[in-house]
Amino acid sequence: MEVKSPRTDAPINVNTNQVVTDTMISIADSLINIADSIDASNLDEFASMLTSANRIFVMGAGRSGLVAKSFAMRLMHIGFQVYVVGEIITPAVTAGDVVVAISGSGNTRTISEFGEICKKLNVKLVTVTTNKDSALGRMSDLVVILDNKQKPVQSKEYMERQLRGNHKSLTPLGTLFELTAAVFLDAFIAKMMVIKGVDESFLKQRHTVLE
Amino acid sequence: MEVKSPRTDAPINVNTNQVVTDTMISIADSLINIADSIDASNLDEFASMLTSANRIFVMGAGRSGLVAKSFAMRLMHIGFQVYVVGEIITPAVTAGDVVVAISGSGNTRTISEFGEICKKLNVKLVTVTTNKDSALGRMSDLVVILDNKQKPVQSKEYMERQLRGNHKSLTPLGTLFELTAAVFLDAFIAKMMVIKGVDESFLKQRHTVLE
Amino acid sequence: MEVKSPRTDAPINVNTNQVVTDTMISIADSLINIADSIDASNLDEFASMLTSANRIFVMGAGRSGLVAKSFAMRLMHIGFQVYVVGEIITPAVTAGDVVVAISGSGNTRTISEFGEICKKLNVKLVTVTTNKDSALGRMSDLVVILDNKQKPVQSKEYMERQLRGNHKSLTPLGTLFELTAAVFLDAFIAKMMVIKGVDESFLKQRHTVLE
Amino acid sequence: MEVKSPRTDAPINVNTNQVVTDTMISIADSLINIADSIDASNLDEFASMLTSANRIFVMGAGRSGLVAKSFAMRLMHIGFQVYVVGEIITPAVTAGDVVVAISGSGNTRTISEFGEICKKLNVKLVTVTTNKDSALGRMSDLVVILDNKQKPVQSKEYMERQLRGNHKSLTPLGTLFELTAAVFLDAFIAKMMVIKGVDESFLKQRHTVLE
Repeated sequence: MEVKSPRTDAPINVNTNQVVTDTMISIADSLINIADSIDASNLDEFASMLTSANRIFVMGAGRSGLVAKSFAMRLMHIGFQVYVVGEIITPAVTAGDVVVAISGSGNTRTISEFGEICKKLNVKLVTVTTNKDSALGRMSDLVVILDNKQKPVQSKEYMERQLRGNHKSLTPLGTLFELTAAVFLDAFIAKMMVIKGVDESFLKQRHTVLE
Repeated sequence: MEVKSPRTDAPINVNTNQVVTDTMISIADSLINIADSIDASNLDEFASMLTSANRIFVMGAGRSGLVAKSFAMRLMHIGFQVYVVGEIITPAVTAGDVVVAISGSGNTRTISEFGEICKKLNVKLVTVTTNKDSALGRMSDLVVILDNKQKPVQSKEYMERQLRGNHKSLTPLGTLFELTAAVFLDAFIAKMMVIKGVDESFLKQRHTVLE
Repeated sequence: MEVKSPRTDAPINVNTNQVVTDTMISIADSLINIADSIDASNLDEFASMLTSANRIFVMGAGRSGLVAKSFAMRLMHIGFQVYVVGEIITPAVTAGDVVVAISGSGNTRTISEFGEICKKLNVKLVTVTTNKDSALGRMSDLVVILDNKQKPVQSKEYMERQLRGNHKSLTPLGTLFELTAAVFLDAFIAKMMVIKGVDESFLKQRHTVLE
Repeated sequence: MEVKSPRTDAPINVNTNQVVTDTMISIADSLINIADSIDASNLDEFASMLTSANRIFVMGAGRSGLVAKSFAMRLMHIGFQVYVVGEIITPAVTAGDVVVAISGSGNTRTISEFGEICKKLNVKLVTVTTNKDSALGRMSDLVVILDNKQKPVQSKEYMERQLRGNHKSLTPLGTLFELTAAVFLDAFIAKMMVIKGVDESFLKQRHTVLE
C-alpha cells in the first residue's frame, strides 16, 4: 500500500455534510466578492489581446493546468485557434501569439520559466493569478488579479461556524483560486461571446462529436 | 484559417464587463441554491463507498473529464489509490473498485458504455449528474444530483437584467454543470478530509514536486 | 499493494539479457519484412489524402493512441493542421477533414464507433492496422496493412532460439504492431517531407520551445 | 492559416515510396547495431533497481514522453506501481522510488531540472539517452546508452542510395532515438517478464477494459 497512515477510523456518521454545504456557500460568497472587485479595464484589454492574437496558447501546472484546458476548449468553441502548452500537437509560439498563464501563486516554476521564454520571443503574456507581485506577475503584459483578500465579507452563518472551527483549510492548497479562475474564465467567455457575436448554437457546431 | 465566420467586427468598447460580473454572480447564486438542495444521505453513502473501495477510478468526457481529473488529484492527495479512465497507466477495473462518472446529461455515449462494462464486472458505479433519469443515472449504484431547476431563486439585479436580454445562454453547453460539479466535488473533498482526519499539510506532502 | 502475485523471487542473474538482444533483433527483422511487403499504391493515396485534407485528425486507444500522437506531432512539424481525437482543444470533424485511425486489431471498440460517426459525416477515414477484414478495415476509405504473417523470414539465430523456448510472447498484446506502426509512420513522414519539400530545419522551427 | 510556406506543389507521383522502404530498413539496421552494442551489466542493474523500487516514475518531453508512457503501461501490466511525471494523479516522489528519464540529448531542460530535484530528494534516477556526457547523464545513478555512432554498418543498398542523396535527415529531430528507445524498452519489458515470471495472459488481465 503506497499511502502512509491517514486516520481511517474516523466516525463516518458525524455530520460532515454541513461541511459540504458550508464549503460550497463559502466558495460562492468568495466568487461574489471577486466578481465585484475585478478591474474592468483589464478585461477589455484581455479581450482585445485575444481578438488581435494570431493564435492563443494556454498554460498552467496541475489543477490550474486543467482550468487552462477548460478555458481553451471554450476559446476553440467560439472560433479561436488555440493550443495547450505541453500537448503533443502544440507548435512553437512566435511573435503575434498570446500566451495565457494560470497560476495562483504566480511563481509556479515551470510556468514562470515558460513565461520568460515567451518574453524573450516577444510573445504577449497574460497571467491570471492572485499575486501581482510574483515572477509571472512582474513579467506579464497583462495581469488579471483574482483575489478577495481586501473584501472578506462572508455569510453570517458561515462566519459564526468559522469561530468554532477552522473551515478555511478545507479548501486546501490552490483550491479556492482554481475554482475562482474556472468561474471567472467562463464568465469571461460570456463576454467574448457577446464581442464575437456568437451564441450557444455556434459553439455546439464546433464541439467534437467523437466522445 | 480554420474558423468560418464569427462576427469579429463587434464593438469591443460596449460595456461587456457587466456580462462578466453578472455571469459570476449568477453562477454563485446557483451554487448556493444547489448547496441547500443536495441530498445529505447520498453524501454519506458516497463517502462510505470511497473509503471502502479497493481503488477509485474517475471518468468523464470533455470538460467533465477535466473536473473528474481535478477531483482525482485531491483524492490522491488525501491518500486514496486513484486512476483516471483513459490514462495510459490505468489498470483494469475489478470487483472491489469504485468508478465515479461525471456527466451533466448522464447520457454521454462513451461514458455510458464504460458504465455498462463496469456493471457487468460488478464494479460499483457512482454518477454525478443533473439527470437521474438518464443512461448513467439508471445503471448507477449511487446518483448524486446537482440541479437547481426546482429552486430558480436568483439575485434580484440579475433577474431584472435577464428580462432585458438572454444571459442564460452565456453559460453555454455544460458550463453550469461543470462548474457546479467542480465546486461540489471540492466541497465533498472537505468532507472527506474531516472523515479521514487529514489536513492541508498532509495533502501538501503528497503533492508532486516535479512541476 | 494493488498487484496480486507475480513471481518476484526469480533469479535476476540468469542471462535474461539475451532476451533483450533477441527481441530487438526479432523486431528489426519483422520491420524489414514489412518494409518489403507494403503496398506502394496505398502510400501514394495516403499521401494524397493528407495533402488535400482540410485538417487531419488522428486517433487510437492505449499505446496505439500514443503512436497516433507521435505521428500527429510530426505532421504538425511539416506544416499540417492536425488534431488528436479526445484532446480538449480538438474541434468537431467536418466533411473535408481526414481521420487517421491506428488499431492493430481494427476492432478497438471506441475507435470503431468513432469511425462510424466519421463515415456518417462524410469524413474520410484511413486505418493503419494488421487486419483488413475488421470493423475499421471494412468501413475505411483507405486501409494501410502492416502485417508480416505472409513472410515469416527471421534471422537464423533467432529462429533456432525460438525452437528452445517461446520468445514470441515476449512482444505481448499489441507490442509488435505498435512498434511497427511507429516506425512505418515515421518512414511515411520521410515521404511526406520529400513531397512537401521541407527539411529538418523547417521542422525544427515549428517545434515547441516550451518544454 | 497558421503555417507559413511549405512547398505544396511537389509532384506527388515521384517515387517517394522508396523513401519509406529505405527509411524503415535503415531504422531496422540501426536497431540491430544497437542491440549488439548494449552494455549487459547496465540492464541487470536497471532491472534490479526497478524490482526493488517502491514505485516507478517515468518522464520525458514531447515524443520521448510518449515513449516513456508506452513503457509505463507495460510496467503496470507486469505488476509495477508506476506513474507518469506531469499526469494529474501522480503523487510526490520520495526516497525509495525510482525515476526513469527518457531524453535523446540528455539535456532537455524541464526533464533535467526534474532530475536535479530527484537527486536532492535521494530518489534514484535512471536515464535512457544517446549522450552519457549530458546533464542527465552526469547526475543519474544509471545511464543506459542507446547509440549506434560507433557501428555505422548499414545495408549496402541503403548506403549506396545515401551517396546520391541525404536520407539521414529523413529521420528528423529525435526520431531515430525515440524509435530506438521504444523498441529497446519493449525488449527490456521482455526481460522483466522473464524475471517476474509473468506471461502475456498475466498482462492481459491487467489491461484496461474501458477503451
